[in-house]
Amino acid sequence: MSRWEPDAQGRLQQAALELYTERGFDQTTVAEIAERAGLTERTFFRYFADKREVLFGGQAPLLELLTKSVAEAPDSASPLDAVGVALEGAAAFLDGRRDGSRLRQAVIDANPALQERDLAKRAAMAGAIAEGLVHRGVSETTARLTAEAGAAVFGLAFEQWLAADRHGLAYFVRRALAELKTLS
Amino acid sequence: MSRWEPDAQGRLQQAALELYTERGFDQTTVAEIAERAGLTERTFFRYFADKREVLFGGQAPLLELLTKSVAEAPDSASPLDAVGVALEGAAAFLDGRRDGSRLRQAVIDANPALQERDLAKRAAMAGAIAEGLVHRGVSETTARLTAEAGAAVFGLAFEQWLAADRHGLAYFVRRALAELKTLS
Repeated sequence: MSRWEPDAQGRLQQAALELYTERGFDQTTVAEIAERAGLTERTFFRYFADKREVLFGGQAPLLELLTKSVAEAPDSASPLDAVGVALEGAAAFLDGRRDGSRLRQAVIDANPALQERDLAKRAAMAGAIAEGLVHRGVSETTARLTAEAGAAVFGLAFEQWLAADRHGLAYFVRRALAELKTLS
Repeated sequence: MSRWEPDAQGRLQQAALELYTERGFDQTTVAEIAERAGLTERTFFRYFADKREVLFGGQAPLLELLTKSVAEAPDSASPLDAVGVALEGAAAFLDGRRDGSRLRQAVIDANPALQERDLAKRAAMAGAIAEGLVHRGVSETTARLTAEAGAAVFGLAFEQWLAADRHGLAYFVRRALAELKTLS
């Protein structure tokens, strides 16, 4: 058997999601995940620090993408429009993974500790967006508020996308963003 | 010694905050909190489920106040203005406790697990606000988005209030809300 495992990370994520769905997050061990994926525990820990990271790992590239897209949006874009451009980019990052995202969300929704971690992830998203806005010369207060509103838009759009059968995530992002602009 | 302890709850909260500040949250035991307050561990557990609840307990009345204030704001108020009325009410609830709130926030900021709990608290606030908006006949989507934006306004205003020497919390709430309305 080769020591190199093609897509070991993806197989571990898939196995973990199956087991969390079948048995619950708390009832699943790393050994079981590795076995289901046909890999060793050692391989598991090469990719993930713990069971939770299988669900939440890999956020760094998304955060970097958000900061960069906001910072590099056209000069003419308002702060909120710059956020909109970035969120549509993030949506493209997730589109095509609706089924896996649904399973993952169901696991999170069933576990209060995972829900808190999910909120922390969204706060990190707002932080990454705000950082991009500050790069654009937007004041700290406006940056924070716009970023939080943007993260709320994304959170709502994400939920609607999971519940829907048609339309990509970007569609729901645009719709929620348009609605945000009408608040007064 | 009387079995009835005047303001046992407040004394336990005060003692806990002192000890968390002096030694750190993880390094403080319930026994130490009770001792500092001149009370027993048994009394501690009559008021709080655990060490964390000393910091986060008592949110229920604030959430009820938020839902009720939003629901009962004048019919003429827009969804966001109804939220504004409710947030100013919540601000009045906290005003006059700036010093204690600062100590509390410093304890939370020093501990990632407490930070996640703090985010969950804010999500609960958004939920309570959205509930009030739905009572007003606002659509689910608008309610969620307005509530999330309102919670972001409150979070930002709260931070600015903690950092400031002048102005009450309501001042910062009004200012952030006005800024939110200019996003486009």
